[in-house]
Amino acid sequence: MYRTHTCGELRIEDIGKELMLSGWVQRIRDKGSIIWIDLRDRYGITQLVFDEAVTSAALIEQARKLGREYVIQVKGNVLERSSKNPNIPTGEIEIRVSEIVVLNSSETPPFTIEDESDGGDELRMKYRYLDIRRNPVKEGLLLRHKMAAEVRKYLDEKGFIEVETPVLIKSTPEGARDFVVPSRVHPGEFYALPQSPQTFKQLLMVSGLDKYFQIVKCFRDEDLRADRQPEFTQIDCEMSFVERKDIIETFEGLAKHLFKKILNVEFDGDFPHISWHEAMEKYGSDKPDIRFGMEFNDITEMVKGKGFPVFDNAEFIVGISAQGCSEYSRKQIDELTNFVQRPQVGAKGLVYVKCNNDGSFKSSVDKFYTPDLLAQWAEKMQAKPGDLLLVLAGEKSQTLSAMCSLRLEMGAQLGLRDNKTFKPLWVVDFPLLEWDEEAKRFYAMHHPFTSPLEEDKVHFEGDMKKIRANAYDFVINGVEIGGGSIRIHDETLQKKMFTALGFSEEEAKEQFGFLLNAFKYGAPPHGGIAFGFDRWVSMFAGMDSIRDIIAFPKNNAAKDVMIDSPSFISSEQLKELSIKIVD
Amino acid sequence: MYRTHTCGELRIEDIGKELMLSGWVQRIRDKGSIIWIDLRDRYGITQLVFDEAVTSAALIEQARKLGREYVIQVKGNVLERSSKNPNIPTGEIEIRVSEIVVLNSSETPPFTIEDESDGGDELRMKYRYLDIRRNPVKEGLLLRHKMAAEVRKYLDEKGFIEVETPVLIKSTPEGARDFVVPSRVHPGEFYALPQSPQTFKQLLMVSGLDKYFQIVKCFRDEDLRADRQPEFTQIDCEMSFVERKDIIETFEGLAKHLFKKILNVEFDGDFPHISWHEAMEKYGSDKPDIRFGMEFNDITEMVKGKGFPVFDNAEFIVGISAQGCSEYSRKQIDELTNFVQRPQVGAKGLVYVKCNNDGSFKSSVDKFYTPDLLAQWAEKMQAKPGDLLLVLAGEKSQTLSAMCSLRLEMGAQLGLRDNKTFKPLWVVDFPLLEWDEEAKRFYAMHHPFTSPLEEDKVHFEGDMKKIRANAYDFVINGVEIGGGSIRIHDETLQKKMFTALGFSEEEAKEQFGFLLNAFKYGAPPHGGIAFGFDRWVSMFAGMDSIRDIIAFPKNNAAKDVMIDSPSFISSEQLKELSIKIVD
Repeated sequence: MYRTHTCGELRIEDIGKELMLSGWVQRIRDKGSIIWIDLRDRYGITQLVFDEAVTSAALIEQARKLGREYVIQVKGNVLERSSKNPNIPTGEIEIRVSEIVVLNSSETPPFTIEDESDGGDELRMKYRYLDIRRNPVKEGLLLRHKMAAEVRKYLDEKGFIEVETPVLIKSTPEGARDFVVPSRVHPGEFYALPQSPQTFKQLLMVSGLDKYFQIVKCFRDEDLRADRQPEFTQIDCEMSFVERKDIIETFEGLAKHLFKKILNVEFDGDFPHISWHEAMEKYGSDKPDIRFGMEFNDITEMVKGKGFPVFDNAEFIVGISAQGCSEYSRKQIDELTNFVQRPQVGAKGLVYVKCNNDGSFKSSVDKFYTPDLLAQWAEKMQAKPGDLLLVLAGEKSQTLSAMCSLRLEMGAQLGLRDNKTFKPLWVVDFPLLEWDEEAKRFYAMHHPFTSPLEEDKVHFEGDMKKIRANAYDFVINGVEIGGGSIRIHDETLQKKMFTALGFSEEEAKEQFGFLLNAFKYGAPPHGGIAFGFDRWVSMFAGMDSIRDIIAFPKNNAAKDVMIDSPSFISSEQLKELSIKIVD
Repeated sequence: MYRTHTCGELRIEDIGKELMLSGWVQRIRDKGSIIWIDLRDRYGITQLVFDEAVTSAALIEQARKLGREYVIQVKGNVLERSSKNPNIPTGEIEIRVSEIVVLNSSETPPFTIEDESDGGDELRMKYRYLDIRRNPVKEGLLLRHKMAAEVRKYLDEKGFIEVETPVLIKSTPEGARDFVVPSRVHPGEFYALPQSPQTFKQLLMVSGLDKYFQIVKCFRDEDLRADRQPEFTQIDCEMSFVERKDIIETFEGLAKHLFKKILNVEFDGDFPHISWHEAMEKYGSDKPDIRFGMEFNDITEMVKGKGFPVFDNAEFIVGISAQGCSEYSRKQIDELTNFVQRPQVGAKGLVYVKCNNDGSFKSSVDKFYTPDLLAQWAEKMQAKPGDLLLVLAGEKSQTLSAMCSLRLEMGAQLGLRDNKTFKPLWVVDFPLLEWDEEAKRFYAMHHPFTSPLEEDKVHFEGDMKKIRANAYDFVINGVEIGGGSIRIHDETLQKKMFTALGFSEEEAKEQFGFLLNAFKYGAPPHGGIAFGFDRWVSMFAGMDSIRDIIAFPKNNAAKDVMIDSPSFISSEQLKELSIKIVD
């Protein structure tokens, strides 16, 4: 036996008990005549004490030889501490040790195993097994476990069944971002790893399984962006005989269940719905952060024709009012200007109007706009004295996007984006199709099985840009946590959709043949949703990156630096697989 | 709204209710003036009725146009059936339909959607989405979901946390059976898919996570054998600060939990333990089926030297007694002889002794053995009048294995292998090392991290074949359901093990470098187990093949015939991946 208790469970009631603990040496404080050791395991920290007055010299000598991260087993009995530590649950007791067994020694770890470590990112990744010993990382993994358990509990109670769909599937001609897997048994042929179980979950609906879910790994061989992982985890769900409101009701229930069980946060009433169009107009984003207002004001018509060429030549002019910022310094305004001019934001410049407390205005365009005109701006933007108006101009979609960044920046500067406050919402009525100017064709905004809204089907014969999708995204605090749609279950409509996307019948067959074939045998009306589990966990954990809540993540170059993967394989292996590297 | 109720929930108490159902047309019985339709969904079957006496001619006409597997929505009210069906829960009621909406039509399915289908295996796999509509397949998937849920519930309650380990890992030089994944971003380099999360779960123990589990997909690119899948699911578990008995206790608890919750089967006391050595001697197998006795009797010494050359030249002679089989016919005995001579069994011949009811003996070796000698055999094998002795001779391990097959065959013939009876046991004390005569080296019987028994460590310096592993397999009814071991956490012992396996220090470093490195920083004592989830589910489902309880399995050629995978990929894709097919 290695232990009778864990390092997290002993309390004042346990005083006098003889017991055995095992764990890691977190810290040694050697005061000469007395030595304290903090012993750590998954469950907490317990203080061990070696006191010259009562402890044998041999044992003290043994304690003195221990090092950080040694694994030891101790026997001893529980004492009341003279100097209690109210910050930890075991802070009222300590263990007088009567015996130590060193279970394993440890080299000095390459960084400190503390909440705030001195290890840099790459180092912590290389020694991830040590990084996980640190509380914040360990707690992230425990939270992830708990969230997954609660997701399963909720969905199981609602009658969903978890079905494992295959990992070795088929690559599609458009699947440029598929990871593929050469088959040894079938030379020259490949499996592909799923970017999502989309087609399989729809097949399960055709199978009549009615309510499906799966917490499942998905894979995408993307060009690397910040905070993406080549493998990531989805909560993937699908239901039959449902309309949009059924799905939203079910999964709003899931979200509320998680908020309650994990964060003890409750919500009054339903989460708000906003149309994609409104979200774009008000927040310049299809995933608005509604923890704060600062909504956009289209002032295009109001400000044109006053001789300011930037505005006169702009397609679109939009402003926000930053409350209480009229006294921003020159430097602060310059910084905001630099911010919007960064390539990631892409605005040409920033116009400001200070609504001074004395009722006067000071703007960067005083030359073109009289105080009266500026007062109109302020009125339109519902600004009060003390506020700062910020205005961007340019091509519409680009300007909306730039203003979105500026609004989020101002929200952050004003402390309006507290990560303990949660404002979930549903974004609905996305455009079904997106026009690609370069390729001169439409792409499906979600995927080719997304159903249009009933009342918009007429536009297949007219302006297809007007067709809205029967789709919905679930957004919390400006982060897209999930998204889904009602699917097309009708063959005729599906064909129309493929035509709109410019697929020939043959191409559609080649890519989606087995699904289209399945639809011939009685596909029920169905729809679903998928949540980005990593993102959801990292948001609930208050972490910035999904890497923080993945046990063994890959870095931004898609490398696992701990195991050194990907890596070269032997020529025998390549030969067995009938493939060759091309330089 | 598509439905107010499911097709499985209406009862006699619901009579008179107005409601809406949706589902598939299972069967239509058209008696002219009255039509019955069985409407099916995941939850059951409800009978719809259209009666000329009360139903409009238009509606009857509409009903008549429906075909098998059409998806329909009906409105109607609940009636008491005149002729009740006690075999289904909804058998007391039927629905008088007032309105039909055809949600989708269906082509005639390629096989019947009935419990016993007329579809062959390949056809059912090709249209797996229709196969899943059949009760036995659907029930298998529901059972799988329920078992996974109960596994999680039990382990969660025991303080285990589920951690997702990566799917894109690193290929090892000995990983000839690894599936690999070319990296597009790192040309010429590959990820590998895990054959098991073994090293990661050990790293998690180094991390201090203490109790880990995961229900996880694993991958093996094996030469194909019956009932293997290239991707399969494990319940993977690991614990720290434990000895063998702790692990056995925890997971025997899991097994009992599943037996109780899933099959309502309870066990008195602990599952039996048997050493590998005893299992081999008594049953010729490291996964004995102990639903019945018929244990082996080594009669080598007793029967040699009587002039029967087959026995005189044999290393090993072993017999079993088949109760009540003394009157087996010539034909039956010949069939048994053919059975043992099949290449899979590999015996040269079969010796039998009939212990006749009158006390006399009749054997195939009467020429060499007097009735008195045969009486000694019978006594040794504890046979009674009416029993049949079956004896095999030859090289020991080969003969044990052949007798194992014969014993199982006799068990089956005598009806002693009922698949509703469960006899679980633990097989322990496996040899640590297996000598490969061809390669002239030892292999690890489990894997290179398996700890030897404490008392056997001395044999590293002597006869290494004598070293027993601190390992354990969990066996039910002759099927290995799980296996694991206490791991080596000590660097010196690990080095000894690598030396025994003929690894140079460099080879060990190359293959297991990151794990060995991790072990330098305070690895705790730990051990674990992994269960074959597919196999366990199929046993509980009473199914013969794991394919039956996998939603979308691959066939014996590792092909998914439904989606036609693996398949060729485009030359652009190959180019992007910097690889080329070699003919």
